[in-house]
Amino acid sequence: MTIDAVLSRIDETLPQALDRLMALLRIPSISTDPAYKADCARAADWLVEDLASLGFRARAAKTPGHPMVVGHGGDGGRHLLFYGHYDVQPVDPIELWDRDPFDPALQDTPKGRVIRARGSSDDKGQLMTFIEACRAWKHVHGTLPGKLTIFLEGEEESGSPSLIPFLEENRAELSADLALICDTGLFEGAVPAITTMLRGLAKSEFTLRAAARDLHSGMYGGLARNPLHVMTAILAGLHDEQGRVTIPGFYDDVAELPDALRQQWQSLAFDHARYLGDVGLSLPAGEADRTPLEMIWSRPTAEVNGLWGGYTGAGFKTVLPAEAHAKVSFRLVSNQDPEKILTAFRRWAEAQLPADCSIDWHDEIEGSPASVMAITDPAFEAARQALSDEWGRPAAFIGAGGSIPVAGYFKTYLGMDAMLIGFGRDDDKIHSPNEKYDLESFHHGIRSWARILARLR
Amino acid sequence: MTIDAVLSRIDETLPQALDRLMALLRIPSISTDPAYKADCARAADWLVEDLASLGFRARAAKTPGHPMVVGHGGDGGRHLLFYGHYDVQPVDPIELWDRDPFDPALQDTPKGRVIRARGSSDDKGQLMTFIEACRAWKHVHGTLPGKLTIFLEGEEESGSPSLIPFLEENRAELSADLALICDTGLFEGAVPAITTMLRGLAKSEFTLRAAARDLHSGMYGGLARNPLHVMTAILAGLHDEQGRVTIPGFYDDVAELPDALRQQWQSLAFDHARYLGDVGLSLPAGEADRTPLEMIWSRPTAEVNGLWGGYTGAGFKTVLPAEAHAKVSFRLVSNQDPEKILTAFRRWAEAQLPADCSIDWHDEIEGSPASVMAITDPAFEAARQALSDEWGRPAAFIGAGGSIPVAGYFKTYLGMDAMLIGFGRDDDKIHSPNEKYDLESFHHGIRSWARILARLR
Repeated sequence: MTIDAVLSRIDETLPQALDRLMALLRIPSISTDPAYKADCARAADWLVEDLASLGFRARAAKTPGHPMVVGHGGDGGRHLLFYGHYDVQPVDPIELWDRDPFDPALQDTPKGRVIRARGSSDDKGQLMTFIEACRAWKHVHGTLPGKLTIFLEGEEESGSPSLIPFLEENRAELSADLALICDTGLFEGAVPAITTMLRGLAKSEFTLRAAARDLHSGMYGGLARNPLHVMTAILAGLHDEQGRVTIPGFYDDVAELPDALRQQWQSLAFDHARYLGDVGLSLPAGEADRTPLEMIWSRPTAEVNGLWGGYTGAGFKTVLPAEAHAKVSFRLVSNQDPEKILTAFRRWAEAQLPADCSIDWHDEIEGSPASVMAITDPAFEAARQALSDEWGRPAAFIGAGGSIPVAGYFKTYLGMDAMLIGFGRDDDKIHSPNEKYDLESFHHGIRSWARILARLR
Repeated sequence: MTIDAVLSRIDETLPQALDRLMALLRIPSISTDPAYKADCARAADWLVEDLASLGFRARAAKTPGHPMVVGHGGDGGRHLLFYGHYDVQPVDPIELWDRDPFDPALQDTPKGRVIRARGSSDDKGQLMTFIEACRAWKHVHGTLPGKLTIFLEGEEESGSPSLIPFLEENRAELSADLALICDTGLFEGAVPAITTMLRGLAKSEFTLRAAARDLHSGMYGGLARNPLHVMTAILAGLHDEQGRVTIPGFYDDVAELPDALRQQWQSLAFDHARYLGDVGLSLPAGEADRTPLEMIWSRPTAEVNGLWGGYTGAGFKTVLPAEAHAKVSFRLVSNQDPEKILTAFRRWAEAQLPADCSIDWHDEIEGSPASVMAITDPAFEAARQALSDEWGRPAAFIGAGGSIPVAGYFKTYLGMDAMLIGFGRDDDKIHSPNEKYDLESFHHGIRSWARILARLR
């Protein structure tokens, strides 16, 4: 069988693949720190050279920040774009590392062998799984596994300032049939998964005002309007007793979870007690009629992220303050429109203002909608089968409660869906000291891509 | 008539009385600043000498801080204790003064002549009204107007740290039938008034906790308990839609306003629109079925004085914080017991805590009850008549929304009611630059005490 030869090649050449990853990990490509600008360029050049050796027409494209690596190669019906990022997080606090973050090493741990280095999991180890799969395929078949564009960013850890302009300027070149993004992980560290739903986000900050100045509660308490009371009443009213958001129209554009996904999620047997227990909680606190996975993956939220007002120092001051402040954000799903949600929130809050009160809104009305991939595209089911084959257990379509901005940008600027597949684990300590990537993740990650590409090309 | 001779003497010797007040005002007796310690002692000595010249057995009693001036004199059935304070507020910001705060001057203003100096209204000018009344009486009758103790504090503006120990140590010497306190003002700057109700105060500060650490709203939003939501729900529930406090038992010990007081307060025709308009408000925001004066004088309150939690800096952080914080105070009336109220508040708040949440209380359960004077004592009506005679309009028994601690201390430590009578006006700028005391307040204040003492002795 075709794929067996490729998989065998992957197994046989794992030591060499590891050597290449180690070489890339030795380049301290920290994108936020200008001191490492040359290192970022060096990492990009290293990748361009490696891609060229596989037959990609590759270049390091200049940006106002760090270069984008772009490579094109292969032939086939479906054009796939692979995304990863070669930049890494800073290493502070350096004293908490057991070894030099840029002197990678293979280490034995009670849970197995790991590759220890900054960027091993986020995202150099992950992006190399794809490149190594291409390399093995090329060796066995003499060609790349389909029509491929490789697109590697160097600013992901510093807010991707050049990404949107680069997508807009190179729209024709970068548009493909489907994007593959390798920057996520296995579900609960074990279940192979394709992330097909990402929640969006809308943010709001306001100041609620009453009197023209702070008042003494002896002279005014009980008579004058206290904006802290008005604000707490508004914020407390954001949810009803069932945990549902009360803003009119909030759920208008929220779709119910498709039955197929609901069944998959149920089969994941998500251990919410452990997930909550890890942070000192025991019970789900969201919508009463939703499962914990729905709460974080497929249901919208309204959360107060910060509030303040009055006297907050040591001791006491019996003040009725002139102002109260809050920051509120909304995680969005399905077709919820950030502008519509924020406008509805403002209208709802202002409708509750008693006499003598006003609200100043500090944010623009903007935000990012949810990303919901078209899993009816057979490519998703094909990739899921490939992952199931490799890992020996059913792979799942899962959601993610937070945003992975690049997936939304691909959709918005290139009109392209994305399949998010990764092999990281929760204990990889990305962004923290002693980052690692399991050798198993690297090895089976490479094999996973070979299987996926065999089905998608 | 006896009183006419005294009043004439007061009128004739007003210039000399003013000279004496000026001499006292020249002493910069700022009690909070150790640099003025000798000046505080000098002010005390000046008062001792002046009291001695009127036949008082007077002394400056040492304390760990500034001296207490105590003088005894006269004879009579009812023993009266007069309280005032000779210390003054600091003068910062000094650049906003039109003249040296300790170089007093008589100035003509569109509203009449004023004595301009730090302490002119708070409280040297006021305390001297009583001493000058005694002086005129002594000149006319050869004796003091009744059995009097004069008690002048030098630490009122710095929190009265020596007061309670001094009252406890000198209980026998300082106990009298009734205290007269001259440290308040005319109602709305015009109506002579005796303050007979002072609200008490109880304070509470708490931290409400949920998760063991701050959580990312992408990973936990919608699933995990947000303590900011729990706190706003509790605080928003402090009042019902009618503005009443909802804590069970909160109103148990609140007496209704006696009809006689209600009628007096109505006759004051309190201009609440102006009172609120001065601070940028237009409508009363308290209990729907109470008048504005009741709201600030005779009704208890629950007010959030400060709250904070989550991310409060610039920009945004989509955090579900581990903690939320609030400071809440209660103005108390009638027989409300601070301990009972705070205990009920804690129990009420804790009963609303959902799973996984806890509250840490940061304050001791303590506070000060309201002071409600026994106006059935005929002395109150007698003093009210005297004030009405002097000012040519009905004097009123009024309340005060804030605390005047010494009144409570006299009750608690000496078992003595107090009559709070003063002649300050709202525009006296006490505690601020350019403090003044109207010459009319000083002159009619002296005459007022003469009339009151004639009726009370």
